[in-house]
Amino acid sequence: VKGAVPLREKSLLAALRRIAQSPGPRSRRGNRSVVKGIGDDCAVLRLPRGHELLVTTDFSLEGIHFLRGWHPAESVGHRCLTRGLSDIAAMGGEPLAAFLSLAVPRELPQTWVRQFTRGLLRLAEQHGVILAGGDTAESPQGILADIVVVGSVPKGQAILRSGARPGDRIFVSGELGGSMAALRQRKGKKKAAIEGYRRHFCPQPRVALGRALREQKLVSAMIDTSDGLSTDLSHICEESGVGAEIDAERIPRARVAKPEREVDLELALHGGEDYELLFTVPAGKPIPARIAEAKLTQIGRITRARGMVVRDASGAAGPLEPQGWEHFR
Amino acid sequence: VKGAVPLREKSLLAALRRIAQSPGPRSRRGNRSVVKGIGDDCAVLRLPRGHELLVTTDFSLEGIHFLRGWHPAESVGHRCLTRGLSDIAAMGGEPLAAFLSLAVPRELPQTWVRQFTRGLLRLAEQHGVILAGGDTAESPQGILADIVVVGSVPKGQAILRSGARPGDRIFVSGELGGSMAALRQRKGKKKAAIEGYRRHFCPQPRVALGRALREQKLVSAMIDTSDGLSTDLSHICEESGVGAEIDAERIPRARVAKPEREVDLELALHGGEDYELLFTVPAGKPIPARIAEAKLTQIGRITRARGMVVRDASGAAGPLEPQGWEHFR
Repeated sequence: VKGAVPLREKSLLAALRRIAQSPGPRSRRGNRSVVKGIGDDCAVLRLPRGHELLVTTDFSLEGIHFLRGWHPAESVGHRCLTRGLSDIAAMGGEPLAAFLSLAVPRELPQTWVRQFTRGLLRLAEQHGVILAGGDTAESPQGILADIVVVGSVPKGQAILRSGARPGDRIFVSGELGGSMAALRQRKGKKKAAIEGYRRHFCPQPRVALGRALREQKLVSAMIDTSDGLSTDLSHICEESGVGAEIDAERIPRARVAKPEREVDLELALHGGEDYELLFTVPAGKPIPARIAEAKLTQIGRITRARGMVVRDASGAAGPLEPQGWEHFR
Repeated sequence: VKGAVPLREKSLLAALRRIAQSPGPRSRRGNRSVVKGIGDDCAVLRLPRGHELLVTTDFSLEGIHFLRGWHPAESVGHRCLTRGLSDIAAMGGEPLAAFLSLAVPRELPQTWVRQFTRGLLRLAEQHGVILAGGDTAESPQGILADIVVVGSVPKGQAILRSGARPGDRIFVSGELGGSMAALRQRKGKKKAAIEGYRRHFCPQPRVALGRALREQKLVSAMIDTSDGLSTDLSHICEESGVGAEIDAERIPRARVAKPEREVDLELALHGGEDYELLFTVPAGKPIPARIAEAKLTQIGRITRARGMVVRDASGAAGPLEPQGWEHFR
């Protein structure tokens, strides 16, 4: 990638290949999985014996999922891969390899691609994930990325959305609303105060937590909070054929900005892109306060009656409607 | 997908799920591989025992890979999946499942998405491939598709680009230049005469041929002709550390248009998107005239000397430069 990003697809892919091959040590796990990476018609991967394959794909489109003038390129690359890793975490899986499809407009400076790739590869490295392929193209307008992450899970042990049962307790990891809070404060300022909003610019997918919950057989259903608590919980309810009751005052709210303040309940209930894990636990299974450095909080319970309900501190209940995640347009 | 394509990502994905689940019988092979398809954080797939995983990803972007006003939506869907299936074919693999990431502009009529999906799913059905997931989004401009195909191949038997050796004969399946010929005639007419240019609008990936060549252990290296003979052959040469000599008059040229005519040598040498297989065969291995209904033609040989050479009917040799595939812009 010299000067402007080259027009020819193959040269951008070759550049990505050089970048992907340049970092130093990788986890043995990742290296053993990828038999043939970038540079052939397909990548060739090996799965651990007795494991099934997990596949997830997620867009990161300029103007929809990020703003070129507001998000640092490194953050865009980091968030792009986080989306995929978080989906693997939500199945209790082990991420193995990533595939990046990247289309960029002709005029995009090479610096942007380099920083984007650095953000993506740094996170990949932390999780022992190899960039094993992808596609590149000229974009007619805007930067377009699509990330594929493949992972593995022991046969029959993937944690689905459909396993929640009436009486199960509902837990969430970490804190909610911190990512959306960054978007709200954007309306005031031109440049983001990145340090005060790390959950937005640098979200950490809960891979170790997802794996531990699966290994310890603690959960009946799981999803990541990419679209916001109300929407993601509704997916568990739909797929499991159950309802849910949430205690508003138990929801762990993110602390953001400098000086720190707690986000509003609305953001914690509906704000997306926190990439925490939301899961249900059958009666009689004790859950520790922390697993894999993640704080775990019980926020409600699964009900036989369909629909979702939220209770305030006084015990008064109201309907909880799924309110998805806001696009930039 | 009612009226205009809905804004919310999940509803478009739900619509795709309904579409994907609607067709009737599927191959037992595909069905057994997909443990969990659309509707969870990841798809869960099972690989046949003793097999490795193949993964390929390919963009289909409006204005770059197709023109909305010129390509029928069904053809765009068909060609989108062909790109991925052809990559699996080029490894000698068996395609198992596809993942579609699709972003469409707000104003796109639902008819377009339905026809696109029909073209894609019809081809998937023919190859026993299940649409097992993907992502959907609103596009800031233009239709953006990214297709992922996963497949399997017996352990250690994937056919790479890097196995060609001096003395190997070079073969190609079918005929070349037919796809690019459609683009050339576009300059004259507004609507394409689709029937005369089926290789462009409805290319058939050579999956059965690729698998047969692998099973019969006939080839040392293989690639699909997605970027054009000169470019794709240069990839085999680079990865194998060899050169190549091509006999111009042996190259099978496509017959296009009505009444039929043979395409120019230039198109057969450099025109991309024919999705034929280009492969090398060690000395002493006889190749039949046809395998899996595909005509096979010897067009040259691998040389120790680097670089590519093309010989005309008189035997005069000139350098063959890789000249890639033309984008629409």
